[in-house]
Amino acid sequence: MKLSAIQRAYISGFLDGDGSVYVQTKRNASYRYGYQIAPAIVFFQSAKSEDSFKEFHRLLNLGNMRKRKDGILEITVNRIAEIRELISFVKPYVRMKRRQIELLEQILSAKEQIEDEDDFFALRELVDAYRNLNYSKKRKRIVDPVET
Amino acid sequence: MKLSAIQRAYISGFLDGDGSVYVQTKRNASYRYGYQIAPAIVFFQSAKSEDSFKEFHRLLNLGNMRKRKDGILEITVNRIAEIRELISFVKPYVRMKRRQIELLEQILSAKEQIEDEDDFFALRELVDAYRNLNYSKKRKRIVDPVET
Repeated sequence: MKLSAIQRAYISGFLDGDGSVYVQTKRNASYRYGYQIAPAIVFFQSAKSEDSFKEFHRLLNLGNMRKRKDGILEITVNRIAEIRELISFVKPYVRMKRRQIELLEQILSAKEQIEDEDDFFALRELVDAYRNLNYSKKRKRIVDPVET
Repeated sequence: MKLSAIQRAYISGFLDGDGSVYVQTKRNASYRYGYQIAPAIVFFQSAKSEDSFKEFHRLLNLGNMRKRKDGILEITVNRIAEIRELISFVKPYVRMKRRQIELLEQILSAKEQIEDEDDFFALRELVDAYRNLNYSKKRKRIVDPVET
Protein backbone atom coordinates (compact mmCIF):
# COMPACT_ATOMS: atom_id res chain seq x y z
CA MET A 1 0.00 0.00 0.00
CA LYS A 2 1.41 3.34 -1.00
CA LEU A 3 0.71 6.19 1.39
CA SER A 4 -0.39 9.59 0.09
CA ALA A 5 1.31 12.82 1.17
CA ILE A 6 -1.78 13.56 3.28
CA GLN A 7 -1.47 10.20 5.06
CA ARG A 8 2.25 10.70 5.64
CA ALA A 9 1.65 14.17 7.05
CA TYR A 10 -1.03 12.71 9.34
CA ILE A 11 1.36 9.99 10.58
CA SER A 12 4.04 12.67 11.14
CA GLY A 13 1.66 14.68 13.29
CA PHE A 14 0.72 11.55 15.23
CA LEU A 15 4.41 10.81 15.82
CA ASP A 16 5.10 14.37 16.97
CA GLY A 17 2.13 14.42 19.29
CA ASP A 18 2.46 11.06 20.86
CA GLY A 19 5.34 9.00 19.53
CA SER A 20 8.77 8.26 20.86
CA VAL A 21 11.96 7.97 18.83
CA TYR A 22 14.75 6.37 20.80
CA VAL A 23 17.92 4.35 20.80
CA GLN A 24 18.69 1.86 23.52
CA THR A 25 22.23 0.72 24.27
CA LYS A 26 22.11 -2.69 25.89
CA ARG A 27 25.12 -4.51 27.29
CA ASN A 28 25.19 -7.83 25.49
CA ALA A 29 28.31 -9.98 25.48
CA SER A 30 27.19 -11.84 22.37
CA TYR A 31 27.69 -8.67 20.30
CA ARG A 32 31.12 -7.90 18.88
CA TYR A 33 31.76 -4.76 20.95
CA GLY A 34 29.80 -5.87 24.00
CA TYR A 35 26.78 -3.71 23.24
CA GLN A 36 23.66 -3.95 21.20
CA ILE A 37 22.46 -0.64 19.68
CA ALA A 38 18.68 -0.94 19.40
CA PRO A 39 16.75 1.93 17.80
CA ALA A 40 12.96 2.08 17.74
CA ILE A 41 10.06 4.34 16.89
CA VAL A 42 7.02 3.78 19.10
CA PHE A 43 3.42 5.04 19.07
CA PHE A 44 1.23 4.87 22.20
CA GLN A 45 -2.47 4.94 23.03
CA SER A 46 -4.60 3.98 25.99
CA ALA A 47 -6.44 0.66 25.76
CA LYS A 48 -9.84 2.36 25.45
CA SER A 49 -8.81 3.44 21.93
CA GLU A 50 -7.92 -0.08 20.83
CA ASP A 51 -10.19 -0.27 17.77
CA SER A 52 -9.13 3.03 16.28
CA PHE A 53 -5.48 2.39 17.16
CA LYS A 54 -5.70 -0.90 15.24
CA GLU A 55 -7.06 1.09 12.32
CA PHE A 56 -4.09 3.46 12.65
CA HIS A 57 -1.80 0.41 12.67
CA ARG A 58 -3.37 -0.82 9.42
CA LEU A 59 -2.70 2.59 7.87
CA LEU A 60 0.89 2.61 9.15
CA ASN A 61 1.41 -1.01 8.11
CA LEU A 62 4.72 -1.18 10.01
CA GLY A 63 5.78 -2.54 13.39
CA ASN A 64 4.03 -4.69 15.94
CA MET A 65 1.24 -3.79 18.34
CA ARG A 66 1.17 -5.09 21.89
CA LYS A 67 -0.61 -4.32 25.14
CA ARG A 68 1.64 -3.53 28.10
CA LYS A 69 0.84 -4.77 31.59
CA ASP A 70 -0.32 -1.27 32.55
CA GLY A 71 -2.89 -1.38 29.72
CA ILE A 72 -1.12 1.05 27.39
CA LEU A 73 -1.05 -0.05 23.75
CA GLU A 74 2.20 0.30 21.83
CA ILE A 75 3.07 0.00 18.16
CA THR A 76 6.83 -0.60 18.07
CA VAL A 77 8.77 -0.26 14.82
CA ASN A 78 12.21 -1.74 15.49
CA ARG A 79 13.25 -3.66 12.38
CA ILE A 80 15.87 -1.59 10.57
CA ALA A 81 14.18 -1.78 7.15
CA GLU A 82 10.88 -0.69 8.68
CA ILE A 83 12.48 2.17 10.64
CA ARG A 84 14.04 3.37 7.38
CA GLU A 85 10.69 3.21 5.62
CA LEU A 86 8.98 5.13 8.43
CA ILE A 87 11.75 7.76 8.42
CA SER A 88 11.24 8.23 4.67
CA PHE A 89 7.51 8.76 5.28
CA VAL A 90 7.80 11.33 8.04
CA LYS A 91 10.99 13.20 7.17
CA PRO A 92 9.36 15.85 4.96
CA TYR A 93 6.61 16.62 7.49
CA VAL A 94 7.82 15.99 11.02
CA ARG A 95 8.40 19.13 13.09
CA MET A 96 8.83 18.50 16.82
CA LYS A 97 10.96 15.38 16.34
CA ARG A 98 12.89 16.51 13.26
CA ARG A 99 16.29 16.44 14.95
CA GLN A 100 15.63 13.00 16.49
CA ILE A 101 14.62 11.62 13.08
CA GLU A 102 17.70 13.09 11.36
CA LEU A 103 20.05 11.80 14.03
CA LEU A 104 18.39 8.38 14.01
CA GLU A 105 19.03 8.23 10.27
CA GLN A 106 22.74 8.99 10.90
CA ILE A 107 22.85 6.30 13.58
CA LEU A 108 21.39 3.70 11.20
CA SER A 109 24.00 4.58 8.56
CA ALA A 110 26.85 4.50 11.09
CA LYS A 111 25.58 1.16 12.41
CA GLU A 112 25.71 -0.34 8.92
CA GLN A 113 29.24 0.89 8.28
CA ILE A 114 30.97 -0.36 11.42
CA GLU A 115 34.27 -1.97 10.52
CA ASP A 116 36.35 -1.51 13.65
CA GLU A 117 36.22 -0.42 17.27
CA ASP A 118 36.80 3.25 16.35
CA ASP A 119 33.66 3.17 14.20
CA PHE A 120 31.80 1.62 17.10
CA PHE A 121 32.89 4.35 19.52
CA ALA A 122 31.93 7.00 16.97
CA LEU A 123 28.50 5.37 16.83
CA ARG A 124 28.23 5.39 20.62
CA GLU A 125 29.00 9.12 20.56
CA LEU A 126 26.16 9.66 18.10
CA VAL A 127 23.87 7.67 20.38
CA ASP A 128 24.93 9.83 23.34
CA ALA A 129 24.28 12.99 21.30
CA TYR A 130 20.88 11.53 20.52
CA ARG A 131 20.12 10.86 24.14
CA ASN A 132 20.86 14.46 25.01
CA LEU A 133 18.11 15.47 22.61
CA ASN A 134 15.57 13.26 24.31
CA TYR A 135 16.38 13.95 27.93
CA SER A 136 16.68 17.27 29.67
CA LYS A 137 19.98 17.85 31.44
CA LYS A 138 18.23 18.17 34.76
CA ARG A 139 17.44 14.47 34.80
CA LYS A 140 21.10 13.50 34.35
CA ARG A 141 20.29 9.91 33.44
CA ILE A 142 23.27 7.65 33.82
CA VAL A 143 21.47 4.40 33.12
CA ASP A 144 20.22 3.55 29.67
CA PRO A 145 16.71 4.72 29.01
CA VAL A 146 14.06 2.05 29.20
CA GLU A 147 10.86 3.37 27.81
CA THR A 148 9.10 0.18 26.88
CA MET B 1 -2.60 32.45 7.48
CA LYS B 2 -4.24 29.76 5.43
CA LEU B 3 -3.26 26.19 6.23
CA SER B 4 -2.55 23.70 3.46
CA ALA B 5 -4.16 20.26 3.34
CA ILE B 6 -0.77 18.81 4.37
CA GLN B 7 -0.63 21.10 7.42
CA ARG B 8 -4.22 20.26 8.38
CA ALA B 9 -3.51 16.53 8.07
CA TYR B 10 -0.42 17.00 10.25
CA ILE B 11 -2.45 18.85 12.92
CA SER B 12 -5.10 16.09 12.76
CA GLY B 13 -2.46 13.43 13.40
CA PHE B 14 -1.08 15.49 16.29
CA LEU B 15 -4.57 15.78 17.76
CA ASP B 16 -5.20 12.04 17.41
CA GLY B 17 -1.87 11.13 18.95
CA ASP B 18 -1.77 13.52 21.80
CA GLY B 19 -4.76 15.81 21.99
CA SER B 20 -7.87 15.82 24.09
CA VAL B 21 -11.36 16.80 22.97
CA TYR B 22 -13.68 17.33 25.90
CA VAL B 23 -16.72 19.04 27.30
CA GLN B 24 -16.89 20.10 30.90
CA THR B 25 -20.18 20.70 32.69
CA LYS B 26 -19.65 23.11 35.54
CA ARG B 27 -22.28 24.05 38.07
CA ASN B 28 -22.52 27.81 37.92
CA ALA B 29 -25.50 29.64 39.36
CA SER B 30 -24.87 32.69 37.21
CA TYR B 31 -25.85 30.69 34.12
CA ARG B 32 -29.50 30.49 33.12
CA TYR B 33 -29.90 26.75 33.73
CA GLY B 34 -27.40 26.52 36.56
CA TYR B 35 -24.66 24.99 34.44
CA GLN B 36 -21.94 26.18 32.16
CA ILE B 37 -21.16 23.87 29.22
CA ALA B 38 -17.48 24.38 28.42
CA PRO B 39 -16.00 22.53 25.43
CA ALA B 40 -12.27 22.56 24.67
CA ILE B 41 -9.67 20.98 22.43
CA VAL B 42 -6.27 20.67 24.11
CA PHE B 43 -2.78 19.68 22.92
CA PHE B 44 -0.08 18.59 25.39
CA GLN B 45 3.69 18.32 25.45
CA SER B 46 6.35 18.03 28.12
CA ALA B 47 8.25 21.20 28.99
CA LYS B 48 11.48 19.95 27.39
CA SER B 49 9.79 20.39 23.99
CA GLU B 50 8.87 24.01 24.66
CA ASP B 51 10.58 25.56 21.61
CA SER B 52 9.15 23.15 19.07
CA PHE B 53 5.73 23.22 20.77
CA LYS B 54 5.75 27.03 20.42
CA GLU B 55 6.50 26.50 16.73
CA PHE B 56 3.54 24.10 16.55
CA HIS B 57 1.42 26.78 18.25
CA ARG B 58 2.44 29.33 15.61
CA LEU B 59 1.36 26.86 12.92
CA LEU B 60 -1.93 26.16 14.68
CA ASN B 61 -2.48 29.87 15.37
CA LEU B 62 -5.39 29.08 17.70
CA GLY B 63 -5.79 28.83 21.46
CA ASN B 64 -3.54 29.79 24.34
CA MET B 65 -0.43 28.08 25.61
CA ARG B 66 0.32 27.73 29.29
CA LYS B 67 2.60 25.74 31.55
CA ARG B 68 0.88 23.70 34.23
CA LYS B 69 2.30 23.39 37.73
CA ASP B 70 3.48 19.86 36.91
CA GLY B 71 5.54 21.24 33.99
CA ILE B 72 3.29 19.96 31.20
CA LEU B 73 2.62 22.49 28.44
CA GLU B 74 -0.93 22.86 27.16
CA ILE B 75 -2.41 24.64 24.17
CA THR B 76 -6.09 25.09 24.99
CA VAL B 77 -8.58 26.07 22.31
CA ASN B 78 -11.77 27.00 24.14
CA ARG B 79 -13.25 30.02 22.36
CA ILE B 80 -16.25 28.82 20.35
CA ALA B 81 -15.18 30.50 17.09
CA GLU B 82 -11.71 28.98 17.41
CA ILE B 83 -13.06 25.51 18.22
CA ARG B 84 -15.21 25.73 15.09
CA GLU B 85 -12.21 26.75 13.01
CA LEU B 86 -10.12 23.89 14.40
CA ILE B 87 -12.96 21.41 13.77
CA SER B 88 -13.13 22.59 10.15
CA PHE B 89 -9.36 21.97 9.81
CA VAL B 90 -9.28 18.47 11.22
CA LYS B 91 -12.65 17.04 10.23
CA PRO B 92 -11.53 15.62 6.86
CA TYR B 93 -8.42 13.96 8.29
CA VAL B 94 -8.98 12.98 11.91
CA ARG B 95 -9.31 9.23 12.55
CA MET B 96 -9.06 8.23 16.20
CA LYS B 97 -11.09 11.19 17.48
CA ARG B 98 -13.57 11.38 14.59
CA ARG B 99 -16.64 10.63 16.72
CA GLN B 100 -15.58 13.10 19.41
CA ILE B 101 -15.11 15.83 16.80
CA GLU B 102 -18.50 15.13 15.18
CA LEU B 103 -20.30 15.06 18.51
CA LEU B 104 -18.53 18.23 19.64
CA GLU B 105 -19.81 19.93 16.50
CA GLN B 106 -23.36 18.84 17.38
CA ILE B 107 -22.90 20.13 20.92
CA LEU B 108 -21.77 23.55 19.65
CA SER B 109 -24.84 23.77 17.40
CA ALA B 110 -27.19 22.68 20.19
CA LYS B 111 -25.58 25.20 22.55
CA GLU B 112 -26.25 28.03 20.11
CA GLN B 113 -29.88 27.07 19.63
CA ILE B 114 -30.99 26.81 23.24
CA GLU B 115 -34.31 28.55 23.70
CA ASP B 116 -35.84 26.76 26.67
CA GLU B 117 -35.14 24.26 29.41
CA ASP B 118 -36.02 21.28 27.14
CA ASP B 119 -33.30 22.36 24.73
CA PHE B 120 -30.91 22.61 27.61
CA PHE B 121 -31.67 19.09 28.80
CA ALA B 122 -31.26 17.79 25.25
CA LEU B 123 -27.85 19.45 25.22
CA ARG B 124 -26.93 17.84 28.52
CA GLU B 125 -27.84 14.46 27.04
CA LEU B 126 -25.50 15.10 24.12
CA VAL B 127 -22.78 16.02 26.59
CA ASP B 128 -23.39 12.77 28.48
CA ALA B 129 -23.23 10.79 25.22
CA TYR B 130 -19.97 12.56 24.54
CA ARG B 131 -18.56 11.66 27.91
CA ASN B 132 -19.31 8.00 27.29
CA LEU B 133 -17.05 8.19 24.25
CA ASN B 134 -14.16 9.57 26.28
CA TYR B 135 -14.41 7.38 29.37
CA SER B 136 -14.65 3.64 29.59
CA LYS B 137 -17.66 2.29 31.45
CA LYS B 138 -15.44 0.64 34.01
CA ARG B 139 -14.48 3.98 35.44
CA LYS B 140 -18.13 4.96 36.03
CA ARG B 141 -17.30 8.59 36.68
CA ILE B 142 -20.05 10.38 38.50
CA VAL B 143 -18.24 13.65 38.95
CA ASP B 144 -17.55 15.92 36.04
CA PRO B 145 -14.24 15.23 34.31
CA VAL B 146 -11.49 17.68 35.09
CA GLU B 147 -8.62 17.17 32.72
CA THR B 148 -6.83 20.49 32.99
